[in-house]
Amino acid sequence: MDGISERLSRQLEFVAEIDKMKTVLRQTLLMDKSRRETDAEHSWHFAVMAMLLAEYAAEGINIDRVIKMALLHDLVEIYAGDTFAYDVAGNLDKEDRECAAADRLFAMLPSEQAVEYRSLWEEFDAMQSPDARYASAIDRLQPFISNFHTQGHTWKQHNVTKAQVLTRMEPVREAAPALWQFVLAVIEDSIEKGYISISR
Amino acid sequence: MDGISERLSRQLEFVAEIDKMKTVLRQTLLMDKSRRETDAEHSWHFAVMAMLLAEYAAEGINIDRVIKMALLHDLVEIYAGDTFAYDVAGNLDKEDRECAAADRLFAMLPSEQAVEYRSLWEEFDAMQSPDARYASAIDRLQPFISNFHTQGHTWKQHNVTKAQVLTRMEPVREAAPALWQFVLAVIEDSIEKGYISISR
Repeated sequence: MDGISERLSRQLEFVAEIDKMKTVLRQTLLMDKSRRETDAEHSWHFAVMAMLLAEYAAEGINIDRVIKMALLHDLVEIYAGDTFAYDVAGNLDKEDRECAAADRLFAMLPSEQAVEYRSLWEEFDAMQSPDARYASAIDRLQPFISNFHTQGHTWKQHNVTKAQVLTRMEPVREAAPALWQFVLAVIEDSIEKGYISISR
Repeated sequence: MDGISERLSRQLEFVAEIDKMKTVLRQTLLMDKSRRETDAEHSWHFAVMAMLLAEYAAEGINIDRVIKMALLHDLVEIYAGDTFAYDVAGNLDKEDRECAAADRLFAMLPSEQAVEYRSLWEEFDAMQSPDARYASAIDRLQPFISNFHTQGHTWKQHNVTKAQVLTRMEPVREAAPALWQFVLAVIEDSIEKGYISISR
């Protein structure tokens, strides 16, 4: 387009490409059960929750970095697709698929933005920094709460056990102890209500 | 729930309430035209775009505050509904409806969070600060780009004219001059392609 720099053109192509986050469906239902939620919706909810619950982070965090991680953390799923947390086979090659997706997606951007965004995503994924640990806790808390509000929809559908949910939610324990108390209470309540099975 | 503070309970009720952002439909279609986008999806896209295009802001901005505005700016639509930009009648009482919605929604939160979030929303809405002016520009740019990528879907549906689009996009002119050049080029291209009419 006339008068538009090559740099801006690339950024605007990226803007259009990531519209696909609105078509990547997750297993989680909306709380009104009308349909499955999209990656874009999950990312928004995760970002707002991170902001709202920041006071419960056990370690010092930079909430602005956490919010950016939330916004970007699932972008690779545009090409790699969403891998359900309890899908054992799908999780075997998840890392390879997502790395290839990151190579393809971030190459669209001007190089310093590509580096910044990819490194935020890698940091999130590695769960080694305080920001990434808190972000992971909230990323897991979001569908956990939706599951409870939809009478254990995906837990029941996949016959998920208490042990599996505890493993999945483990990052919350150290990253946000007060939220971990809530997680434990919801799991007990969910077992009582038949949303989560004690064993297979 | 046992062991959960009243404060955390209120915050978690808010987390569940804002799930409704995934059911508020906007006029804008997804770029693949499969359906209308939701407020949650728009808010996510707006936040990422604000981050990606921050270098084009004409005034000094605090991008972290802008991102928070993006995440929160449409929450009142949970109760007030989305008002289409070119709906003259709907925009007459928009302010009253949204104020009432804000009263109801933010009252769910602990008071200092209610004050913080409401004041970010009011600042955004007033478009008086550099952060709010840039945020408004990006909020308008997001559906503008979607419209272009969907062959002018909502423009054609509502027979929107060039003058109307120029008025709607006006905040971009001063907040981000390089993006304004892009807006003008897209409008000319859209007129040529028949997406936007020159007059009624």
